[in-house]
Amino acid sequence: MPDRPQTPLLDQIHRPADLKRLNDRQLVQLAGELRSETISAVSVTGGHLGAGLGVVELTVALHAVFDAPRDKLVWDVGHQCYPHKILTERRDRIRTLRMKDGLSGFTKRSESPYDPFGAAHSSTSISAALGFAVARDLGGVTPEGIGDAIAVIGDGSMSAGMAFEAMNNAGHLKKRLFVILNDNEMSIAPPVGAMSSYLSRLYAEEPFQDLKAAAKGAVSLLPGPFREGAKRAKDMLKGMAIGGTLFEQLGFSYVGPIDGHDMTQLLPVLRTVRARATGPILIHVLTKKGKGYGPAEEARDKGHATAKFNVLTGEQKKTASNAPSYTSVFGKTLTKLAAADDKIVAVTAAMPDGTGLNLFAERFPSRCFDVGIAEQHGVTFSAALAAGGMKPFCTMYSTFLQRGYDQVVHDVAIQRLPVRFAIDRAGLVGADGATHAGSYDIAYLANLPGFTVMAAADEAELVHMVATAAAHDDGPIAFRYPRGEGVGVELPETPEILPIGKGRIIRDGKRVAILSFGTRLAEVQKAAEALAAKGIAPTVADARFAKPLDQEMILGLAARHEALLTIEEGAVGGFGSHVAQLLAEEGVFDTGLKFRSMVLPDIFIDQASPEDMYAVAGMNAEQIETRVLAMLGIASIGEKRA
Amino acid sequence: MPDRPQTPLLDQIHRPADLKRLNDRQLVQLAGELRSETISAVSVTGGHLGAGLGVVELTVALHAVFDAPRDKLVWDVGHQCYPHKILTERRDRIRTLRMKDGLSGFTKRSESPYDPFGAAHSSTSISAALGFAVARDLGGVTPEGIGDAIAVIGDGSMSAGMAFEAMNNAGHLKKRLFVILNDNEMSIAPPVGAMSSYLSRLYAEEPFQDLKAAAKGAVSLLPGPFREGAKRAKDMLKGMAIGGTLFEQLGFSYVGPIDGHDMTQLLPVLRTVRARATGPILIHVLTKKGKGYGPAEEARDKGHATAKFNVLTGEQKKTASNAPSYTSVFGKTLTKLAAADDKIVAVTAAMPDGTGLNLFAERFPSRCFDVGIAEQHGVTFSAALAAGGMKPFCTMYSTFLQRGYDQVVHDVAIQRLPVRFAIDRAGLVGADGATHAGSYDIAYLANLPGFTVMAAADEAELVHMVATAAAHDDGPIAFRYPRGEGVGVELPETPEILPIGKGRIIRDGKRVAILSFGTRLAEVQKAAEALAAKGIAPTVADARFAKPLDQEMILGLAARHEALLTIEEGAVGGFGSHVAQLLAEEGVFDTGLKFRSMVLPDIFIDQASPEDMYAVAGMNAEQIETRVLAMLGIASIGEKRA
Repeated sequence: MPDRPQTPLLDQIHRPADLKRLNDRQLVQLAGELRSETISAVSVTGGHLGAGLGVVELTVALHAVFDAPRDKLVWDVGHQCYPHKILTERRDRIRTLRMKDGLSGFTKRSESPYDPFGAAHSSTSISAALGFAVARDLGGVTPEGIGDAIAVIGDGSMSAGMAFEAMNNAGHLKKRLFVILNDNEMSIAPPVGAMSSYLSRLYAEEPFQDLKAAAKGAVSLLPGPFREGAKRAKDMLKGMAIGGTLFEQLGFSYVGPIDGHDMTQLLPVLRTVRARATGPILIHVLTKKGKGYGPAEEARDKGHATAKFNVLTGEQKKTASNAPSYTSVFGKTLTKLAAADDKIVAVTAAMPDGTGLNLFAERFPSRCFDVGIAEQHGVTFSAALAAGGMKPFCTMYSTFLQRGYDQVVHDVAIQRLPVRFAIDRAGLVGADGATHAGSYDIAYLANLPGFTVMAAADEAELVHMVATAAAHDDGPIAFRYPRGEGVGVELPETPEILPIGKGRIIRDGKRVAILSFGTRLAEVQKAAEALAAKGIAPTVADARFAKPLDQEMILGLAARHEALLTIEEGAVGGFGSHVAQLLAEEGVFDTGLKFRSMVLPDIFIDQASPEDMYAVAGMNAEQIETRVLAMLGIASIGEKRA
Repeated sequence: MPDRPQTPLLDQIHRPADLKRLNDRQLVQLAGELRSETISAVSVTGGHLGAGLGVVELTVALHAVFDAPRDKLVWDVGHQCYPHKILTERRDRIRTLRMKDGLSGFTKRSESPYDPFGAAHSSTSISAALGFAVARDLGGVTPEGIGDAIAVIGDGSMSAGMAFEAMNNAGHLKKRLFVILNDNEMSIAPPVGAMSSYLSRLYAEEPFQDLKAAAKGAVSLLPGPFREGAKRAKDMLKGMAIGGTLFEQLGFSYVGPIDGHDMTQLLPVLRTVRARATGPILIHVLTKKGKGYGPAEEARDKGHATAKFNVLTGEQKKTASNAPSYTSVFGKTLTKLAAADDKIVAVTAAMPDGTGLNLFAERFPSRCFDVGIAEQHGVTFSAALAAGGMKPFCTMYSTFLQRGYDQVVHDVAIQRLPVRFAIDRAGLVGADGATHAGSYDIAYLANLPGFTVMAAADEAELVHMVATAAAHDDGPIAFRYPRGEGVGVELPETPEILPIGKGRIIRDGKRVAILSFGTRLAEVQKAAEALAAKGIAPTVADARFAKPLDQEMILGLAARHEALLTIEEGAVGGFGSHVAQLLAEEGVFDTGLKFRSMVLPDIFIDQASPEDMYAVAGMNAEQIETRVLAMLGIASIGEKRA
């Protein structure tokens, strides 16, 4: 257990209301203690560090000036909410962050009334805050009441169209609404896009404007040393109408940019806008991701996400890996293929590292497109690249591809364009929890006409599927693979182009056939071993394709076995449902077949290790074994029922 | 057959290349003839009129200046493409617009090489054009080659986040790219949002700027009468760097605004930008929706969509309706409920008329929110309204709700917020074709934990479901209903709150049970009558709920019949798949059940009447009857097989 930092002031703070007793100097001290506590907590839990460190002062200032939970404070994405959690009655559990039964790594309504609207995907905060502002004005009733609505959104999140849609609507509705633009020039990766350069120009050209009369009273009570920063704040408020033209054109008042680590700027600005705002106002705050912790400030990703670490040295305690991650296998394979095929291009939505495309981008910078947090555009842009004769790999996490679903249907599938979807983080993902689970892509892709849908059973299969996708020109094709390490199989020297719509038999057995789609295959094989040891050696098959189905193989399995069990890392409506539809159409059920389909259960599963989450889902080897025995009517071994 | 207009010049034009032979005066004449031909064609087919009339001159100018199909002209949405189709080798079929086996009402890749990227949903054009520009620069190969990429996008479509995402990315990539902003201050409904007021201010404040040196040569060859308009164009081009600040801040050059009906402005501006552009450029063109046809110009929606009409009078030939439309039943019922419950609010994404919310908006203007073409924001805004204690009805077409899918999962379902989704245009929709089909919502909603999913079997059921949704506070609830008229049943005086997860038996029968979800029930009942007449009276049930399923009813039906058939207006993965999963889990298949699930087939079905489309889908009464007979092993009546 590392030494806890000394936090005498923080120890007296149990809820935001306690901040009202502190003077501004104490608030500065409190911010320092809050930073130390955040670093200390994340050092034992791992998690998102940089974002939280960047908003320590902002968090203190917001809670000092506004009145949560009556005022609705909506943190965009939620990466940056750890200091907020510490100040809002959750300090006692802060060292359980992202763990099973612990605090969520994001904001979460069910966790606290201080999280009025949960997040984890980006760019939802302005829509959410606007909804609260409108509900307030219409007399909406909530247990805590509704006061002000404040969205805190990063510059990266601003690149998503959804944020623009919300700004556009807010500018039109003219409700009192606060949007804090937390501008750290980093989302997860360094930001891209014209909006980002606009923001850079904004504070490069007009760092501290000086105009208009305003904010006189706000700073007069401050003691001497506070005067200088406060004077800046005052000047800023005078300049409310300059700079930020883009936001003003969307109907927002604009204040900024201000130094988000200087409490003498933050406090008076927030107090003044709180006192005076009548419509939507954007407060542009400059922060440093990782602020105040050397190892984070110096890291390329500014300490975005970290394993447990030594506070003094910053050294991360990563466990040695046994096999390469699926993500890196994908990145390497695509890069290799691209060396031999100059039509291969790649598209990512602000996740070059997370998707393994960083490797590809280094090698082929002109063929890798980071479109920003903009999945809608990313998908349609990929569709047009395909229409223009390229071979685009549209590379997204399963959960984020949901953002581009209509574009997948309308621009890709209906036009039968050969976009290759590399779908990372398929299935349950561990510490990021329910919001990041990739549960629905099989269902929402496999019912689109003309789509080919694959899942890799292991990292060698993934290599083949990347090659298969590259070679496939007849309509869209998707392949999914999970977060984390492969199973340790040898990687093939030469990727193989798989025959479309053909599965493979892994082991031949009797009575029951287990048909797996995706990486549950490893657990299925364990279950098969255990069953074989008990005298019930099942057949095991890897479907490879959810669409088109290997009808011949599946009907053959059904014919040769008394029971057929499908398993997939996805919700109902996907692979198992397509198999059931086939069996029904072919009349296989008419005379009896013991058929079961193991899918993710009908609940959102909270964060834990992927293994623990799959245990909750009932999908580990032992549970598969139990399921097979039950199907066969064998309650326990040796005791057979009809 | 109405008289055809005289079109001597147009008669000589078979493809865009023919325009190169015409001088500018002839192009003006051609535009007039093209307008007459467009009006004449739509008078016999019905369809989208106003948008096309607004871009007649622009269409001629674009094809005169650019070289399609090598240059990629991408029309956003595609409502406005009829004049384009007339000029691009499709005039001979223009009077088959939107009919079975006729031309699509939108652009469509499979229809013509002059439609390089199809559309029908809005705001995809900039992404698509950018994809072509990038593919061109990377050596992408297409049959027609790739020259310039031009997106034509309306001001309404600009409110969608996707357009912003694409602008943001285009401004960053700096590729040569043309975006024509077709600003008619109307999308379908009058536009809303801050972007719209920005555009209004833009041309109110700076209608014709006058600065910078440019475009000298472009107009010198024009004859006298052309000089005046051309001078304006010249002044405009000089002023390229003023106005349009918002677009410039996103990295675009800006020209405009120019009069989109004045060929003497359009031609030199397009010629000049074509000659000189190096990066992305936005050309702001002002047009009038419905231009040049009195009845359209005078209509509230500027002739957005029309039935067949008399060209001289503008009188539309609407067929008398037998029953109210589902859309109007929804709108009236919601308005009635809202009169007694001030927490009911409604959200639409630019479709107040199409969704029937116009009625609600008239009565409760402060409780109806048109967020613009912004489904992502609309869904999350609704979620926050629910979190703020309101009862939001998020009212969208099934196909457009796909745009907000991630928000449905992440902001609504995971937070279990009671958003009421009123899903119009469920199932096949007729003349709008495959792009507008509501085929996937059952599948993509019913596998979300905590969701309640209903479908109305008729308009009386819809009344009950609106009330049921209003009363349902335990998580999200959706109800779907089709385009068009109800079946003519009496509407209930008092809406009834349905028990959640309970279906209803419509008629009791033997041997086979038909379990319907949605408005196929009418066809099912016809089939049941026909079967009864043949001595095989089936049981018919209306499931009402795809989630939660009425397990008791369904298992009872399975137990009491030798065959069970489900039917729904949706793709595989939805209702039938959930029923199959239940039957499998309960071991019903183990000893045999003839089970079939009728779903939309695995093809995109082209436009036709809904009846014809459902015949293609194999879902009319006769086809249901045939299916039942086949299930029972009865090849034809009187001749039974084992």
